[in-house]
Amino acid sequence: MDLSSFITSLTTSFIIFVILMVLFAYLCTKPGNVVVYYPNRILKGMDPWVGSRTKTRNPFDWIREAYSSTEQDVVNLSGVDSAVYFVFLSTVFGILLISGILLVPVLIPLAMTEKNPNVKDSTGKNAFDDLDKLSMAHLKEKSPRLWVSVIACYWVSIVSYVLLWKAYKHVSDLRAAALTSPEAKPEQFAVLVRDIPFSSKSNSRQEQVDEYFKTIYPETFYKSIVVTENKEVNKIYEELEDCKKKLRRAEIIYADSKKVNPEGVVQTHKTGFLGLVGKKVDSIKYYNEKIDELTPKLEAAQKSTIAEKQQGAAVVFFTSRVTAAAAGQSAHARMIDTWTVIDAPEPRQLLWTNLPKTYYEREVRQYVVYFIVFLTILFYMIPIALISAFTTLPNLKKLLPFLKPILDQDAIRTVLGAYLPQITLIVFLALLPAFLLFLSKAEGITSQSHAERGASGKYFYFSVFNVFIGVTIGGTLFDSLKEIEKHPNSIVDKLATSLPGNATFFITFVALKFFVGYGLTLSRIVPLIIFHLKRKYLCKTEEDLKDAWLPGDLGYATKIPDDMLILTITLCYAVIAPLILPFGAIYFGLGWLVSRNQVLNVVVPKYESYGKMWPHIHIRILASLLLFQVTMVGYLGVKKFIYTPIIIPLPVITLVFGFVCSTKFYRFFKTTALEVVASRELKERPNMETVYKSFIPPSLNSDKALVEHLDESV
Amino acid sequence: MDLSSFITSLTTSFIIFVILMVLFAYLCTKPGNVVVYYPNRILKGMDPWVGSRTKTRNPFDWIREAYSSTEQDVVNLSGVDSAVYFVFLSTVFGILLISGILLVPVLIPLAMTEKNPNVKDSTGKNAFDDLDKLSMAHLKEKSPRLWVSVIACYWVSIVSYVLLWKAYKHVSDLRAAALTSPEAKPEQFAVLVRDIPFSSKSNSRQEQVDEYFKTIYPETFYKSIVVTENKEVNKIYEELEDCKKKLRRAEIIYADSKKVNPEGVVQTHKTGFLGLVGKKVDSIKYYNEKIDELTPKLEAAQKSTIAEKQQGAAVVFFTSRVTAAAAGQSAHARMIDTWTVIDAPEPRQLLWTNLPKTYYEREVRQYVVYFIVFLTILFYMIPIALISAFTTLPNLKKLLPFLKPILDQDAIRTVLGAYLPQITLIVFLALLPAFLLFLSKAEGITSQSHAERGASGKYFYFSVFNVFIGVTIGGTLFDSLKEIEKHPNSIVDKLATSLPGNATFFITFVALKFFVGYGLTLSRIVPLIIFHLKRKYLCKTEEDLKDAWLPGDLGYATKIPDDMLILTITLCYAVIAPLILPFGAIYFGLGWLVSRNQVLNVVVPKYESYGKMWPHIHIRILASLLLFQVTMVGYLGVKKFIYTPIIIPLPVITLVFGFVCSTKFYRFFKTTALEVVASRELKERPNMETVYKSFIPPSLNSDKALVEHLDESV
Repeated sequence: MDLSSFITSLTTSFIIFVILMVLFAYLCTKPGNVVVYYPNRILKGMDPWVGSRTKTRNPFDWIREAYSSTEQDVVNLSGVDSAVYFVFLSTVFGILLISGILLVPVLIPLAMTEKNPNVKDSTGKNAFDDLDKLSMAHLKEKSPRLWVSVIACYWVSIVSYVLLWKAYKHVSDLRAAALTSPEAKPEQFAVLVRDIPFSSKSNSRQEQVDEYFKTIYPETFYKSIVVTENKEVNKIYEELEDCKKKLRRAEIIYADSKKVNPEGVVQTHKTGFLGLVGKKVDSIKYYNEKIDELTPKLEAAQKSTIAEKQQGAAVVFFTSRVTAAAAGQSAHARMIDTWTVIDAPEPRQLLWTNLPKTYYEREVRQYVVYFIVFLTILFYMIPIALISAFTTLPNLKKLLPFLKPILDQDAIRTVLGAYLPQITLIVFLALLPAFLLFLSKAEGITSQSHAERGASGKYFYFSVFNVFIGVTIGGTLFDSLKEIEKHPNSIVDKLATSLPGNATFFITFVALKFFVGYGLTLSRIVPLIIFHLKRKYLCKTEEDLKDAWLPGDLGYATKIPDDMLILTITLCYAVIAPLILPFGAIYFGLGWLVSRNQVLNVVVPKYESYGKMWPHIHIRILASLLLFQVTMVGYLGVKKFIYTPIIIPLPVITLVFGFVCSTKFYRFFKTTALEVVASRELKERPNMETVYKSFIPPSLNSDKALVEHLDESV
Repeated sequence: MDLSSFITSLTTSFIIFVILMVLFAYLCTKPGNVVVYYPNRILKGMDPWVGSRTKTRNPFDWIREAYSSTEQDVVNLSGVDSAVYFVFLSTVFGILLISGILLVPVLIPLAMTEKNPNVKDSTGKNAFDDLDKLSMAHLKEKSPRLWVSVIACYWVSIVSYVLLWKAYKHVSDLRAAALTSPEAKPEQFAVLVRDIPFSSKSNSRQEQVDEYFKTIYPETFYKSIVVTENKEVNKIYEELEDCKKKLRRAEIIYADSKKVNPEGVVQTHKTGFLGLVGKKVDSIKYYNEKIDELTPKLEAAQKSTIAEKQQGAAVVFFTSRVTAAAAGQSAHARMIDTWTVIDAPEPRQLLWTNLPKTYYEREVRQYVVYFIVFLTILFYMIPIALISAFTTLPNLKKLLPFLKPILDQDAIRTVLGAYLPQITLIVFLALLPAFLLFLSKAEGITSQSHAERGASGKYFYFSVFNVFIGVTIGGTLFDSLKEIEKHPNSIVDKLATSLPGNATFFITFVALKFFVGYGLTLSRIVPLIIFHLKRKYLCKTEEDLKDAWLPGDLGYATKIPDDMLILTITLCYAVIAPLILPFGAIYFGLGWLVSRNQVLNVVVPKYESYGKMWPHIHIRILASLLLFQVTMVGYLGVKKFIYTPIIIPLPVITLVFGFVCSTKFYRFFKTTALEVVASRELKERPNMETVYKSFIPPSLNSDKALVEHLDESV
């Protein structure tokens, strides 16, 4: 990529960003769009237009608002997980900023002033253009200026260690504060029980579970819910709910029609496929009949499900938070494969269907999933490498000569040259997350948040291996296929040699990500258009309207690995091409601002895991740091710098640092420390019946069925 | 070693064994020796001469008695740890017996009938004698008969897996049965608390601990004992106890002298060094004065110790076994380095001085100890290898020519040739255990049983690396020093080549161990002589007499590694020289019988860890199996057998088997499963005050000091 494509890329990205910003500033003041730009505040029952919003607005108002919000605001409005995400953004921003302050003004002049006749002349194909002069690749082999690279590596590493340590401590405090909260949370009184062994003594699972826990916790055991096979009852329940919704809609349309014609127009529809075929019926009457028919059917199904379809898992409730926390950490049975007790997640994120999976099933599933992920990571590399190699302009012209007349036009060539590879990459990566989330859930994980953490972890390794390593080596694939064939094992060396050539590609990639990506996120153009289309053509009731504007959550499963990829790229280039550091810093700084706006005004978190994401993020930041350090060992080796062994301790220090952090902090993230839940009295003794009911799946939550069952079992 | 030394060694060992047996059969019927041969029964308040013992005795009575005793007898008389030791012996006996039944009649004829001209002729120095014809070393290179070796390896491994799995299950049941016991054991109501952080709020550690646990366990917390610095008070206490003992002795001697002379002879002694110098004083008067002086001093020291010398560790008591078990498994504080709570061991085996060691101190100490052990294992090898090489007869003659006239005498040469290397080895190994136990305690471990497990583990690796590998390679050191220098890394190949040459050495080593070792253990000649000498010349009071016959415990720290070494040797030779299998089986069979007698009649266990030794033994048996399998890979490789890869899965299977066993069973050995302590009601609610007092160190156990302290702190 030459300087002009680089500038073009940056400029167009920036222009798109500015347009989106202006659009955002204009659109978010319109009252009709309030539900698109401030849904979180509306759902929380707050006035969306606080303070200055009522007065004149300027396009930078949201920045001031985001910047002036405190961490406590975030915790209150969006929970600990969101606050942890900001700790992540600010920590990484800090690392890149502090690294950049030293590295950019020192390394770039050093590289520019180096006279390196070899680079320009002897090896023609490696010819460096103007941009590459700014990178350390411009240094001569064995140049004493490489000493500065060594110091820079230590600087980046030490800054990372210090900030990561502080961040871990801070997140641990955040988690403790949230768990100490005097407000009773249902999940703090519950544990999940899996692998309940088959018993011939008890009449039912319910009795078996109750007896078992009553013996162990005679004073604090409250009740239990045995997990049931809900497929049938869920189906009836959904059908019923659907009928009720359609009935409400039909009634509203009928009422609306009355305003025009006092007699009203009777709503009709066809009962066949998609309402297109079949008998024409009176909708209101039809749905009323259907509801009358389904309601007793549901009740019967509920009763039979609770009585007959009990499975080998349960949710057990205690009257004390400390007992529940201790139970989640204690071995109850002698063998690992029976009576597994773990902390309960929130009811809303509990993955019911995974609960009854047995220990051995889970183990087998886990290994199978790991194997599939391994294959995915390995074989996605091939198409990505090919695409990356094909989509450079010269290659395109070579391989698809009929495109030559188009590609030779200046404007098209510049735009395509600037964007083609990045767009391919982004599109390619968008296909994967759903698959990985599905795989994580297939492991038998019990909570949505855990499944998303799993998917996020898989995606991170995928993107580092495929995008970063794949593109880096793939970008020079045509140049150096022979070399790779000769030394397939020397991937570090290969990476080290290929890195400098791809620096500008990745700088534009980062810039594209933040200008266009954050521009789209902030302006919410796509959700806005969808909302207005839905409102106009589909929404009939208030309910429909709310469904149309209801926002999602931040989407950690893809957001964090995306950020991590940018971090990995920036870290790995930090010393080789320090110009990337300000771009990386802007990515995370701007990300912080945009996400603040999102979290405060837009997104609604789907769950709360009290910062359990952090250890996961921490380990992956360290993995990036390790990759950077190993790459630098290879890079200095390629430059034939004889003091290279001086940075070999760095990867070791990173591993030790990771081990120490895990030992010191991790246990509290895995389980709940007893002093935390015991340290403050609850505001009021919780109503245990409410706690208990909050865990009953909606399809079974008919008071009638439950009361009967309770009468029987007590 | 030729056939005649082999026979000599076996014969003399057997004769010594027979003599010791006869001695035992004779001596144990004498009433005066009853305290030497049946101390455990006497201490348990049982009649030592049960059943047939009163009638005529024959030398094999003890065998019948040992054989007819049940596991429950062992548990009742000597605890779970002893029963677990028998599970170990019978499991290993089973492995060796079942392996031997197939291997001995199949492999030995196969080896004998092989015509292998290469061995006898071409390489003169490797010439095999008659005994070696029985070993697989006699097979030709690439011989198809090596297939049988492969099958034999699988047979031995599968037998081991099956028996080990059963044994683990059985031991787990034993542990569960003991922990379920309706008798209240004090340690089940207590936990150890370490790393108590410094607090400026509380007035004392005692208050801090009580407040902390009262908050978390408002209903089940009972009391706590804060660990104190007891050096000073212990010194005074010991002095006082010593005075009391001497006073009692002086009184008895005075009373005895009255029987002769009605006025009695006043006991006197000198106050100086060892009673040899200084002023002559009236003993009774002197000790009475001393006791009067020390008693208030002790009380003052107790008070000041409890008040002022509190340290950062405590023993905390709960009124419920389940709470104590759950507390020992739960994280109480957010950070790993504060409020560490672990299960309490029995009071008698608590290592008080290790309790206040902080988390970081423990970590550092652990790594330092590991490093020292590593060095010990590494550098003990050199002298052992040298000694083993020097103490063969031809080498002795070469190096110490002045011994030649002595060594040339037939009788001496045969005896020395048979015993010298083995005796050197045994003596050398006797020096180490105390050092390793000291090292284990220095790690900061809290209980004697854990320290002995640690020492036992270290000793195992030491003996395998040094005795087995050291002797095997060292025995051929002079022959193949050059080869080792050339390929220092090919230790497996080296081992595989050297093994056959040392087969007879190890067979005699095993035989010596069981004939002489068990003969001495059973006959108790040494303790008997010491007891009679003490009784005659030293013992004055009943107390002295009891001290003289009081037996020790089984001494797991050395016994188990010794047995494990025999197992390792036997397993590694099982296929190469199957003749060793019957000897190994006899070692463990005879060991079982002799240990039964020991456990039922003689030894008094010093502690009870409820079978926590087993996982430790299990892992080490697997380590031996792994060494055997790896050695066989090397051995078949040396024989140039092209199907060698067929046994490569075996080491992998062993690792997987070990992982599965640890996952399934180990957690219950590390902590106490809650269902186990909750599953049966206690016979009676324990007196918590008794439980509490059982943990007070004797030097502080004056009711006065405690009561005052309790009044203050409540």
